Amino acid sequence: MASRKNAFYAQSGGVTAVINASACGVIETARANKAKIGKVYAGRNGIIGALTEDLIDTTKESASAIAALRSTPSGAFGSCRFKLKSLEANKREYERLIEVFKAHDIGYFFYNGGGDSADTCFKVSQLADSMGYPIQAIHVPKTVDNDLPITDCCPGFGSVAKYVAVSALEASFDVRSMAKTSTKVFVLEVMGRHAGWIAAAGGLIEDHGIPVIVLFPEIEFDEKKFLARVDKLVKQHGYCTVVVSEGCHYPDGKFLAEQGTRDAFGHAQLGGAAPVVANMVKNALGHKFHWAVADYLQRAARHIASKTDVKQAYELGKAAVQLALKGHNAVMPTVDRISDKPYKYKIGMAPLARVANVEKFMPRNFITADGFGITEPCKRYLKPLIQGEDYPKYKDGVPVYATLKNVPVAKKLPKFDLK
Amino acid sequence: MASRKNAFYAQSGGVTAVINASACGVIETARANKAKIGKVYAGRNGIIGALTEDLIDTTKESASAIAALRSTPSGAFGSCRFKLKSLEANKREYERLIEVFKAHDIGYFFYNGGGDSADTCFKVSQLADSMGYPIQAIHVPKTVDNDLPITDCCPGFGSVAKYVAVSALEASFDVRSMAKTSTKVFVLEVMGRHAGWIAAAGGLIEDHGIPVIVLFPEIEFDEKKFLARVDKLVKQHGYCTVVVSEGCHYPDGKFLAEQGTRDAFGHAQLGGAAPVVANMVKNALGHKFHWAVADYLQRAARHIASKTDVKQAYELGKAAVQLALKGHNAVMPTVDRISDKPYKYKIGMAPLARVANVEKFMPRNFITADGFGITEPCKRYLKPLIQGEDYPKYKDGVPVYATLKNVPVAKKLPKFDLK
Repeated sequence: MASRKNAFYAQSGGVTAVINASACGVIETARANKAKIGKVYAGRNGIIGALTEDLIDTTKESASAIAALRSTPSGAFGSCRFKLKSLEANKREYERLIEVFKAHDIGYFFYNGGGDSADTCFKVSQLADSMGYPIQAIHVPKTVDNDLPITDCCPGFGSVAKYVAVSALEASFDVRSMAKTSTKVFVLEVMGRHAGWIAAAGGLIEDHGIPVIVLFPEIEFDEKKFLARVDKLVKQHGYCTVVVSEGCHYPDGKFLAEQGTRDAFGHAQLGGAAPVVANMVKNALGHKFHWAVADYLQRAARHIASKTDVKQAYELGKAAVQLALKGHNAVMPTVDRISDKPYKYKIGMAPLARVANVEKFMPRNFITADGFGITEPCKRYLKPLIQGEDYPKYKDGVPVYATLKNVPVAKKLPKFDLK
Repeated sequence: MASRKNAFYAQSGGVTAVINASACGVIETARANKAKIGKVYAGRNGIIGALTEDLIDTTKESASAIAALRSTPSGAFGSCRFKLKSLEANKREYERLIEVFKAHDIGYFFYNGGGDSADTCFKVSQLADSMGYPIQAIHVPKTVDNDLPITDCCPGFGSVAKYVAVSALEASFDVRSMAKTSTKVFVLEVMGRHAGWIAAAGGLIEDHGIPVIVLFPEIEFDEKKFLARVDKLVKQHGYCTVVVSEGCHYPDGKFLAEQGTRDAFGHAQLGGAAPVVANMVKNALGHKFHWAVADYLQRAARHIASKTDVKQAYELGKAAVQLALKGHNAVMPTVDRISDKPYKYKIGMAPLARVANVEKFMPRNFITADGFGITEPCKRYLKPLIQGEDYPKYKDGVPVYATLKNVPVAKKLPKFDLK
């Protein structure tokens, strides 16, 4: 691209503790390349911001405000759960995108998200071919689920993994203290609807002497085997910890979390897997239990973010801009692992055609033969990703997290209704 | 007490992120006063260790191992939920305690716990009068619930309060990012069966621009008013966060958590208040929600402990030994606040007779008139308690927490069966 163009950046899907670090990498790198990249416009609420011409002028933010994104969890510009349909199914949306891009002289499209978002980014990357609008679309990987293919890991995951390992360790120490007369089984539910990467991080506490059972979405739940395992661990250690993935399910595909629980009025209750597992243990073995559902706490926990994760999130944002400047389109920067110990990696590149809509599950050799724990290769994989602490600054006892001004760009086009 | 005597120390009730810091204070101060205090024997699993003569010889632990307790959550010697009955109801237990104390030359009794434990400690303190055995019993305050009387605050609380404020802030940033197309209401359940101190800490995030509703056990739950409040905040801000105490209940005393929820087989499910509140919002207002139950994670979260809390936990352990050395019995060291800002306090003393079995609730003027938030006086009270970070050391991405050797003291007495 010869002339200077503006860039569009947006955040998509579930946010993480470090997606703003990627935003920081994108914006700071664009600012350092003003000869080629004009303004960075952020989409308010992801691609919706592009469709509705709801753009944020990031040039109105000071250098220190942008720098503060590096230690702020969540999506500073708002995120969305919105997937572009195919060109055939909804041409109107693509035409609108091009109108907005034209109106604001946008030649670069940076989309920061997971598998669904990679699909959106890929569709945008094809606009030059399909609709004759020249644009370079680069995907910035992000997902706590760690399920994007090709890249060794995904920004957001290392911090959740660290949160889960630390929290499970701490709660297990608690249970160990109480087991004589009180709680014997502690159940922690973590995210991961299809892939068990986050749950796997709970398995790391085994190396700290904790009897732990991990329940993965990749392994069909076998109640009898599970209860026998709990029984054995409690008899042996006096207590045990269970880390259950929200996606854990029975052989017929039914989630543990969807046990048909009903309230007093017969209304279906949306519950968690943790209380189901805990009650199962109570009913079968009689042990006193406690359970926790970490939910958003885990993916928002910037206070205990992995330093490795924060660094990679920033580097991948930076790399996305560098790839665009080199003329690439329809690609995603990746983390390519060189070695486990010492941990070495380089930033690589993957074609979006091979990333979009592909989910990477835990390899079977990362899960123990009995299906209840993680293997040494899995531990070697996980440990570098949770290394290092990257503490935010604190004021009055809580972290100082940035809230941007998010000044809107003046609209030039008629209103567009999302359907 | 003229001659040198051994000391008994034990941990009781739910453990915290900083109860071991108090243990550290007790043991280090005893070690510094070897002329008067011989060995410190820790009870394995609280008072049960005394009754069953299951004592741990803390002299077998190195100075560095004891120092490491300062940054280790949970109860290093095991805790218990066990309350001594009255002397009339179970004289046998008191006679046994005296046998064990005599056999091991114990003249000092340090008990580290909350209201129920203060009752046990008080009963032991009366053994000189009631049974002719000379002992000095000092209670070391500890409870995340912050519900002990007289003392301005209780070790354990400041760290939970910090955890709740930080976690609620982080999750609220997450929800704010997603609210356009996804989650609009986030519900966080926190501990506090009778007193709303922990939930109150969630109210602090209001000062960070977060629309938050706090549900206290002290305020009878009014579903209609609550839903109206949620509706108003979501209309105004696009989202809101609800921090609900596990002890939140209806006017008839029924806990929200005990909604008579049943599983597919009709078994009563022990659920949480958070899913009940979340489903209530969904059913009435249709908002997408997420909920979290922090459970043990909150009270074990040493990684985000309040520096003020850790310091006070240590100081109160130290003060307990100093009070004993000055000849006191049946007392508890307290935190006496001098000023909010700058935060100043001194260590005081309270008679156990006025502490045992007394619960301190949130004063009404700490809760807003509408019952859904905290007032300025409450914020002034809370803020100093969550000040400062006291990070543990990390290795391989997780904190280095101490596990002691816990070498048993040789038994001298026949076995004793707990009834």
